[in-house]
Amino acid sequence: MKPIFTTTLAVRDYELDSQGIVNNANYLHYLELARHDFCEAAGYSFAAMSADGINPVVRRAELDYISSLRMGDRMEISVSMERRGARFVFRQHISRLPDHQPVLDGVITIVCIENGTLSRGDRLAEAFREWLVDK
Amino acid sequence: MKPIFTTTLAVRDYELDSQGIVNNANYLHYLELARHDFCEAAGYSFAAMSADGINPVVRRAELDYISSLRMGDRMEISVSMERRGARFVFRQHISRLPDHQPVLDGVITIVCIENGTLSRGDRLAEAFREWLVDK
Amino acid sequence: MKPIFTTTLAVRDYELDSQGIVNNANYLHYLELARHDFCEAAGYSFAAMSADGINPVVRRAELDYISSLRMGDRMEISVSMERRGARFVFRQHISRLPDHQPVLDGVITIVCIENGTLSRGDRLAEAFREWLVDK
Amino acid sequence: MKPIFTTTLAVRDYELDSQGIVNNANYLHYLELARHDFCEAAGYSFAAMSADGINPVVRRAELDYISSLRMGDRMEISVSMERRGARFVFRQHISRLPDHQPVLDGVITIVCIENGTLSRGDRLAEAFREWLVDK
Repeated sequence: MKPIFTTTLAVRDYELDSQGIVNNANYLHYLELARHDFCEAAGYSFAAMSADGINPVVRRAELDYISSLRMGDRMEISVSMERRGARFVFRQHISRLPDHQPVLDGVITIVCIENGTLSRGDRLAEAFREWLVDK
Repeated sequence: MKPIFTTTLAVRDYELDSQGIVNNANYLHYLELARHDFCEAAGYSFAAMSADGINPVVRRAELDYISSLRMGDRMEISVSMERRGARFVFRQHISRLPDHQPVLDGVITIVCIENGTLSRGDRLAEAFREWLVDK
Repeated sequence: MKPIFTTTLAVRDYELDSQGIVNNANYLHYLELARHDFCEAAGYSFAAMSADGINPVVRRAELDYISSLRMGDRMEISVSMERRGARFVFRQHISRLPDHQPVLDGVITIVCIENGTLSRGDRLAEAFREWLVDK
Repeated sequence: MKPIFTTTLAVRDYELDSQGIVNNANYLHYLELARHDFCEAAGYSFAAMSADGINPVVRRAELDYISSLRMGDRMEISVSMERRGARFVFRQHISRLPDHQPVLDGVITIVCIENGTLSRGDRLAEAFREWLVDK
């Protein structure tokens, strides 16, 4: 699936664990950062959603760890987005820079809580209409 | 699959995000904690593995977020373990205490790096022989 | 100053950094945890304060790092509390268990934000009256 | 004291706590990041120190929290450096961008562990000679 957004990021030293590699939980942070950056670039930031009473929450995450990032590494994170009913599915890939060695494949499924209950996600789908993969 | 180990844990306030719920990445920490506690209880701690040159690393994680933990919540985390070739598959479940509301299902696949290369995991399988689910 | 509360805690493997010691920022988490545990034990939890519109925030932190905690270590954290005008000063000490080797001395100064502005802290002082060190 | 280095950084959403402000422990991460960036820019990266057997560790931290960073905020972090015997004292300031509202003043004292024991820090002092404040 063709990415609709990419961003770059550097490993922070405190993200390493005692094995000298980035701890597995930090990749969820990296993916979240890229999604939030995408939302902002697409014109509807997380803060704006929050102000509109839309709370996107993670419903499912699948992470394939291919290789490890280490001290001083830089990465590129890509984002694509499709809608499946009330769910928004983000396919994301992390590769190390500058050699583009694959690091992680992630599939993150988001649902929207609006006013405390699960919504159909229509407002989000409308806001991101031009970015949603056509199925 | 029947759990072979359970542990309990309390949410720490700094693990909450601005939505007032535990940030999605922290669940990987909770699952890791429970696996490490299990290894120690089973007689082969993470520190001992490290001293033996065995570095378990996460190869794949599947996380189904069912409900959210909040400030003051306590949880129970269960662990089961099976071997599939060079891979060790941990099925883990988090429920909220005391009502056992389901919070998260996780499947974490681990491989072993020994002396810098992927191993068949025989030493780990031997150490955890009595805990491995019979397939 | 005599501690009014102590709690015990174990280092979590993901809190270590690539030097194999607990990263310096995690000690602020440990100290916060102990203060929150104290507040709850003293009958006025952080969640209850929040519900009452009282938001304690850190105004100043002084941390003396004496020795490092490592994988598998357990610690004891003590708390004492005094009031200085609108400020609540917590003196906290972390020692390694079971040998009580000193790890960290901390002085954390808290102020209260109530309804968006700095308060004199009278409600907090009243709630913790019996625990405040007499000056 | 005149800063010898500045860097800019954006708040990450997962760094916020349930009060909607950056959790106090994250500022130690921000300050560490700026020091490591400075070291790299000055030609002697943390990774290179590590390879040379030099392990800088935090000995003392003083943090004055002046105002809070929130979702979407950007910051500037400055660094200055002086030597006091075996200690390296970094004075650091964080301000919010673009209005330069003061956020935090920090004084971080570092010592060097070389081959497991406290060193006089001569190798570090030599490497950073031109950056050290003249006393």
